[in-house]
Amino acid sequence: MSKQISLFGLGAMGKALALKYVETGYTTTIWNRSPGKAEPLVARGAKLASTVADGIEASTLILICLLDNASVKETLSKATPSLPGKTIVNLTNGTPSQARQVSEWVTSFGAVYIHGGIMAVPDMIGSPHSVLLYSGESPEAFDHIESDLAYLGTSKFLGTDPGSASLHDLALLAGMYGLFSGFFHSTALATSEAGTTASGFLQLLTPWLGAMTHYLGALAKQIDDGDYTTQGSNLAMQVAGIQNIVKASKEQGVSPAFILPIFERMGRAVEKGHGEDDVSAVIEFMG
Amino acid sequence: MSKQISLFGLGAMGKALALKYVETGYTTTIWNRSPGKAEPLVARGAKLASTVADGIEASTLILICLLDNASVKETLSKATPSLPGKTIVNLTNGTPSQARQVSEWVTSFGAVYIHGGIMAVPDMIGSPHSVLLYSGESPEAFDHIESDLAYLGTSKFLGTDPGSASLHDLALLAGMYGLFSGFFHSTALATSEAGTTASGFLQLLTPWLGAMTHYLGALAKQIDDGDYTTQGSNLAMQVAGIQNIVKASKEQGVSPAFILPIFERMGRAVEKGHGEDDVSAVIEFMG
Repeated sequence: MSKQISLFGLGAMGKALALKYVETGYTTTIWNRSPGKAEPLVARGAKLASTVADGIEASTLILICLLDNASVKETLSKATPSLPGKTIVNLTNGTPSQARQVSEWVTSFGAVYIHGGIMAVPDMIGSPHSVLLYSGESPEAFDHIESDLAYLGTSKFLGTDPGSASLHDLALLAGMYGLFSGFFHSTALATSEAGTTASGFLQLLTPWLGAMTHYLGALAKQIDDGDYTTQGSNLAMQVAGIQNIVKASKEQGVSPAFILPIFERMGRAVEKGHGEDDVSAVIEFMG
Repeated sequence: MSKQISLFGLGAMGKALALKYVETGYTTTIWNRSPGKAEPLVARGAKLASTVADGIEASTLILICLLDNASVKETLSKATPSLPGKTIVNLTNGTPSQARQVSEWVTSFGAVYIHGGIMAVPDMIGSPHSVLLYSGESPEAFDHIESDLAYLGTSKFLGTDPGSASLHDLALLAGMYGLFSGFFHSTALATSEAGTTASGFLQLLTPWLGAMTHYLGALAKQIDDGDYTTQGSNLAMQVAGIQNIVKASKEQGVSPAFILPIFERMGRAVEKGHGEDDVSAVIEFMG
């Protein structure tokens, strides 16, 4: 007999998850608010649940990937009597506090709750580069379903706070948007000069970002030690340098907005006596 | 007879540059406004010029690494009659327009001018990971001194606009500060939870940033093509996701400031009809 899984939500990501289980040979039961989206998956062998309760009752393991956590609660509230004994893995994007609230609510009906964050686009699902973060009150429940989840990518269980997976998910996205912000600012500056293309400039930018990503290890150690001593370029020097970026951005018709939040904090750090320290001292001015 | 070079400015970087030529066996003449800084280098065999004119006359190739471009002009103005026939390589940090002004001024006295930007900290000087960007009106002059400059690291000549090296230098630094901004924001979020260290979180962050740096190639191509079509996560979806970062940051006591400039531009891009496009469309909202 094949393994069973139910999947709620057929957006781009939900479809990719469901397809992976269909391909792997699971009896895959799917549910979506607009059932039309299910047709291609039904054609591949998935079973369409006509009600939420049917979807929950079809499997012990339920994966949920909806628009937001309000939709998760609204959906599950239609079938709370079916929840006891089920394991709910909620992969819906949201904040840590939302994940904690859904966890408390779901477990109050006798189900096990695990929250997950998917660090991948739908195309990557099933590859080892697809990383999925999980957290929830029962590590044993996670161990029990780890082999089922492994089909989606590399799993990392982060601990018993149901909000932890969302927190790390959003933290990684914040890191990505910082990288992207730097990419847009630097590319806009470089391509403000005639004849420079984004792809051409990227030949310089990529190895530089690689070297600077490597340097994050030193900054992280300084932060953990609370000792920001540097052998390299100190904050007072860096503040002088970053002023040239602001000035040149304005001259080239590029907004300096991306760089102002860190510039402002570097200035505050210097004012508070960190002028001889490394940029890592900025971590004290994040509130 | 050994090769000759003169070096003006003995800050941390200037000292590292001078030491490299002393070690390589160049007859190295140094000058600094406060001559006391020269002592350790003189002990290693460098010659201290007592005037700016002496420093310029000692060598055909003059490297300058001062606090700012105003100091460069102020220093050279003391010895303009010595400039004809000399090659001035100005490695001082500044804006592209400053580099263009100094170039025009220096060449008016019959010297060749090349501006440079050093993408390294002093400790890295001489390693292949130390990248130096150059630009100036005479590519032939650069070819002529390229073997002298090669001792400092990997040289890249960017073209005949004397401002180009500074522009690319500042663009790369803007990219670095974006990466650092993302690092601080993400690390502050992750470590807002008890038991998570910056170094521990970095184990998750580093491979993620590596994957996202790889994705910049696709974004650069979209920018060059002016076609922002995506197979992945579109801007409308990303705007919903980034709102969760803003909300979670506030809940965890971390300022969302770093992410607001890109968030605001992503919103504007969606308003202007780029909701189905990739984040690359943000490049149109950089002014």
